[in-house]
Amino acid sequence: MIAERLRHEVLHANRVLSDSGLVMATFGNVSGVDRDAGLLVIKPSGVAYQGLTEADLVPVALADGRVLEGTLRPSSDTPTHLEIYRAFDCGGVVHTHSAYATAFAQARLPIRCMGTTHADHFRGDIPVTRPLTGAEIAGDYERETGRVIVETFRAGGLRPEEISAVLVAHHGPFTWGRDALAAVEQAQALEYVARLEATVRAIAPDAARPDPALIDRHFLRKHGPGSYYGQK
Amino acid sequence: MIAERLRHEVLHANRVLSDSGLVMATFGNVSGVDRDAGLLVIKPSGVAYQGLTEADLVPVALADGRVLEGTLRPSSDTPTHLEIYRAFDCGGVVHTHSAYATAFAQARLPIRCMGTTHADHFRGDIPVTRPLTGAEIAGDYERETGRVIVETFRAGGLRPEEISAVLVAHHGPFTWGRDALAAVEQAQALEYVARLEATVRAIAPDAARPDPALIDRHFLRKHGPGSYYGQK
Amino acid sequence: MIAERLRHEVLHANRVLSDSGLVMATFGNVSGVDRDAGLLVIKPSGVAYQGLTEADLVPVALADGRVLEGTLRPSSDTPTHLEIYRAFDCGGVVHTHSAYATAFAQARLPIRCMGTTHADHFRGDIPVTRPLTGAEIAGDYERETGRVIVETFRAGGLRPEEISAVLVAHHGPFTWGRDALAAVEQAQALEYVARLEATVRAIAPDAARPDPALIDRHFLRKHGPGSYYGQK
Amino acid sequence: MIAERLRHEVLHANRVLSDSGLVMATFGNVSGVDRDAGLLVIKPSGVAYQGLTEADLVPVALADGRVLEGTLRPSSDTPTHLEIYRAFDCGGVVHTHSAYATAFAQARLPIRCMGTTHADHFRGDIPVTRPLTGAEIAGDYERETGRVIVETFRAGGLRPEEISAVLVAHHGPFTWGRDALAAVEQAQALEYVARLEATVRAIAPDAARPDPALIDRHFLRKHGPGSYYGQK
Repeated sequence: MIAERLRHEVLHANRVLSDSGLVMATFGNVSGVDRDAGLLVIKPSGVAYQGLTEADLVPVALADGRVLEGTLRPSSDTPTHLEIYRAFDCGGVVHTHSAYATAFAQARLPIRCMGTTHADHFRGDIPVTRPLTGAEIAGDYERETGRVIVETFRAGGLRPEEISAVLVAHHGPFTWGRDALAAVEQAQALEYVARLEATVRAIAPDAARPDPALIDRHFLRKHGPGSYYGQK
Repeated sequence: MIAERLRHEVLHANRVLSDSGLVMATFGNVSGVDRDAGLLVIKPSGVAYQGLTEADLVPVALADGRVLEGTLRPSSDTPTHLEIYRAFDCGGVVHTHSAYATAFAQARLPIRCMGTTHADHFRGDIPVTRPLTGAEIAGDYERETGRVIVETFRAGGLRPEEISAVLVAHHGPFTWGRDALAAVEQAQALEYVARLEATVRAIAPDAARPDPALIDRHFLRKHGPGSYYGQK
Repeated sequence: MIAERLRHEVLHANRVLSDSGLVMATFGNVSGVDRDAGLLVIKPSGVAYQGLTEADLVPVALADGRVLEGTLRPSSDTPTHLEIYRAFDCGGVVHTHSAYATAFAQARLPIRCMGTTHADHFRGDIPVTRPLTGAEIAGDYERETGRVIVETFRAGGLRPEEISAVLVAHHGPFTWGRDALAAVEQAQALEYVARLEATVRAIAPDAARPDPALIDRHFLRKHGPGSYYGQK
Repeated sequence: MIAERLRHEVLHANRVLSDSGLVMATFGNVSGVDRDAGLLVIKPSGVAYQGLTEADLVPVALADGRVLEGTLRPSSDTPTHLEIYRAFDCGGVVHTHSAYATAFAQARLPIRCMGTTHADHFRGDIPVTRPLTGAEIAGDYERETGRVIVETFRAGGLRPEEISAVLVAHHGPFTWGRDALAAVEQAQALEYVARLEATVRAIAPDAARPDPALIDRHFLRKHGPGSYYGQK
């Protein structure tokens, strides 16, 4: 029964993603997790967003990645989603090839936190993973992609609940949130701040960074115990 | 009763802003003022534009920022709006994170007046504020944002009725006008001239400025006593 | 009676221009000429495109710029249109502030003919006028704008029937064609090739020009006696 | 009878192309081939996409380019399509002037394969042809365009079934696929990766290339015998 609600949420989030213009063709995927039931629900691989139904979504066991129901294959990126759910405390994960964020991933440049639009969503720069090794590419590639994401956060001392996005080198962005829809909203915010930063780099290559206190002020006015943005 | 008309105008202006594509998610806010009644009406904080009603808008006292009616919180940027109304002679104020204008704010570059499109709306460069100090960020942050806007105009000898826009460093643009809708129109014009200037900087970093007389000619043919643009 | 057909054509062309996304707010204007009747018909000044009717359009005498009918003022750029009609053999004139073409005008850079998309519409670079002098700005400004356009073609030995567009320095583009709609189509083509050239300048500042024979081949396969593009 | 199905497919593909935003005005054309019947079906020259019917499409003999039916002229680029069908094993060909891909063609820069979005569609860089010689431009120009495309693949040792796109110098892109619709999808993918690469060049002129193994991994997970993307 819980899976029903999860299917509903994940379908809605996939539709919002598709309507947002962040995905081209069948690219991109959204998943949501039910930790008590030990499963995630994810978009099937290579299926068009238009006409997608709740029944098309694929439930997959968190423990071992087994498909739990149905005949459709899950997104080929499912092993990456699994690694993220295992390491980070989140309820939804999104992968896109959105244009500006992907350009930063291809350039292997972090998206610097240059202003309050960024700080309202992410408490600091969006990191880029190291490139995968030849062995990782040849091996369990999609799972290694998840592992290098987790490694990036652990090695960099980054908090995934404050910086809920990453750029996989030469690939593209993953984002996460408390549920599937929140992860989609972070994917939209990420694309927007990537666009801002691309313009900043074009018009002012030597632009200075803001005071870190400004970043904290904006992040904390929207998130956490002392937040005062929005309605309570 | 006057507040009813003001609610109507401010709701309409918020909708025009939302339809204009200048805001993402719940970002951005529009207010309008009734100086005789001593109040402004502003968008509630963090509420989606879609479904917003007149009753959702929040009336706030100009004198002390008190909420005068209803249960919703006003935009967290309300103290900035208040400072602008106190210092500048205007009837509406708009804040956005529109992409090009925000990139200039993040780069701390003024938007130069490079042509007649700009001069039709603003009589000169759009200034950038100084960054806030650590004390200002830690203190009454949104009010300090308003104060640094006013300081920028006073210190620079700028006339807010001729240059009805500002870029807050590492944050984004504020615009104003004779009423809420006029302020939204200036926000649209600002984004457009920011886009033009970003392209100029990309294709011709050493481009020369126009004759100041050309700027005056265009500004004054649309605004002021000798104007001859539009219908009388 | 002929004026009726002209009003119809000019209204349609104004609507196509408005739908094309090349104009913001009330900016831009389209006119069409009836040389036998000695008049042009043009958009009224500062009136929104939405709701514009044939009756709103303003007929103006070619000889002296007098308004021939109605109570609305013609576009403030009417004297520029008049100069173009007097000097160039064309049936329609368009002025826009379209984003890429205007950026080139602000940068005072010609739009180089770098490929066949450009050559299909314009047989060579799109020129930029010299800036107006202080006396010209202070004087009959809009008429001087038309004069400097004509001067640019005469001094440069350019043929207005082959290069049916110009960038007015620090202002924006004017285009023309055999009728009002054709002039709008040139305005759309101009904006597109300006966009291409802006990208070329960003990705390859030292890009080489094409063989002039390629430009001629493409221009002449669509235009003139030996053309073989389209249906006959 | 087979031609009926082909007309249907080619019309649908032309409509998808038109809806995709990759073509301006009447630019661009799609064809599909029936090798058993020895013919291709292509868009008529200079006809608007809107209102295009199956009957308007023009069947042309593969052997000698003769029009086999109807009174409309085929696209002026038909001889280029013919050369591609003769040399490459494909069922559909598309030509556009899409903005980013055309800018790379005008700049005579290949679109480097900088990431997985590119590698999902094309196994390596998108090449640019050499410019045509004066004799080729003066001669059977559209056929020479096809020949230089084929030459580019032969001389460079490129496999047209793996890199199903080319940039014709100072002109624009051609793409191909197993049928007309697949060729349109490649045209969309090409424009998207051109956009990504334009941004990479703007934000990181010295960006390093990905490991070739990553390109192969992504291309092969979607294409060929060991592919595991999508539903089987």
